Amino acid sequence: MGRALGFDRHALKHTPSVYACRQNAVVDSAEETDIARPPRPILNRDLIARTALALIDRHGAEGASMRRVAQKLNVNPTSLYNHVADRAAMIEDVRALVSARIDSAPLRESTWEEGLLEWARSYRLAFARHPRAIPLLMTTRASTPVLLAEYEDFAVAAEAAGWPTDDVLPLLTAFESFILGSVLDMSGPTVIFDPTGQEEQFPRFTAAYATLEDHDAADPIATRAFERGLAMLVSSARPPKVHSSRRSPSQKAR
Amino acid sequence: MGRALGFDRHALKHTPSVYACRQNAVVDSAEETDIARPPRPILNRDLIARTALALIDRHGAEGASMRRVAQKLNVNPTSLYNHVADRAAMIEDVRALVSARIDSAPLRESTWEEGLLEWARSYRLAFARHPRAIPLLMTTRASTPVLLAEYEDFAVAAEAAGWPTDDVLPLLTAFESFILGSVLDMSGPTVIFDPTGQEEQFPRFTAAYATLEDHDAADPIATRAFERGLAMLVSSARPPKVHSSRRSPSQKAR
Repeated sequence: MGRALGFDRHALKHTPSVYACRQNAVVDSAEETDIARPPRPILNRDLIARTALALIDRHGAEGASMRRVAQKLNVNPTSLYNHVADRAAMIEDVRALVSARIDSAPLRESTWEEGLLEWARSYRLAFARHPRAIPLLMTTRASTPVLLAEYEDFAVAAEAAGWPTDDVLPLLTAFESFILGSVLDMSGPTVIFDPTGQEEQFPRFTAAYATLEDHDAADPIATRAFERGLAMLVSSARPPKVHSSRRSPSQKAR
Repeated sequence: MGRALGFDRHALKHTPSVYACRQNAVVDSAEETDIARPPRPILNRDLIARTALALIDRHGAEGASMRRVAQKLNVNPTSLYNHVADRAAMIEDVRALVSARIDSAPLRESTWEEGLLEWARSYRLAFARHPRAIPLLMTTRASTPVLLAEYEDFAVAAEAAGWPTDDVLPLLTAFESFILGSVLDMSGPTVIFDPTGQEEQFPRFTAAYATLEDHDAADPIATRAFERGLAMLVSSARPPKVHSSRRSPSQKAR
């Protein structure tokens, strides 16, 4: 966790833009405040990324324009470009912030199945704090080292479990789709479907709906659904059995 | 498909607001046009829902405010309320439009496994046309009959396969999370992660990335990932074996 973050979150890069900050500008971490003086944030990549993420959390993907981030930090938009090349680079920093909480160590240190379970759970929790970032991060290209390091752990573990190199990315993507779809699901109302008033037409669904009363009112489905689906995926996470004569001429090439 | 749509898409409800429509207003289907006269849309729930969906497709969830839909139709927002009670009701109509393309008949007519495969594929395709609607539809409460009818088919088939009623909704939600996460994934760039320039640090991930060249350039991962994950889920879609003595005092209650 946190390795290969791609930028030093404690780096303080002093630029003229710092002095444009008003005293009531966003202060994100205690490190940057001073008890004796009023808070004065130092503009750097980390602060920019955290500000962008806070805006995404509140307003969705559209919240994180360079203009809005600059406005929130009370700096001129051009000041941001002293720290990040463009919006895509800023979004990559947001991705690094969120992904830093994904723990891929179990993929290196545990069995394949156990590693998948723990990695997937930490992945879900990392994004559960920022569900509105998901559509944004799933539709932009990623090359942040913190994420690639986790993907490397996945690739090594998948190949060790017997998966051909060609299957690694579809397998990874299948897990990610399930995990991020689960986060989107849990970010909505606790129960998303409601047959009230239509019980006669839909009796078995209504019966299933009624069982929710027996469960945690704050989370009657989301966690059970995630654990159920994850268990199903993990239980078939070994490569399908292939005949040892797989490469014999009588068999079709893959 | 299309049954229990919840509203008659051919119903024409004449209200004064119709006459507020300008001739260049959105016309969605040929039924509502007339070759001899310029198009004059008749305001009804179906037209409102289609207009909202078109706005969501273009602008995301924020695009579908009552004000924007009214603007697009060149009517006064109050006219919309002659047809839909509120924004939530309009979003439910949008959900019905999208969900009408999900085909749950295979859950009634095929084996459990085959039914799941076909249902899931039609579900993915229905939303693939409207990926920007997903975050909106996953975070609002659903009671549209077209969706509940599909859920009823799922509940009946799951119970027939041996799942306890209590497990039906988590199972359904697990499949939906995977399907909708897969749609979000495919709605982004064809390849979302890129190790270019970091090959030495991440050799196995880079090797996996290199295999993408052997595949359909337009879709090197998304469909393979969906089919891989779906096959994994479906292959463990029978309830876990329980001992026949499940309720014996020596065993823990579930």
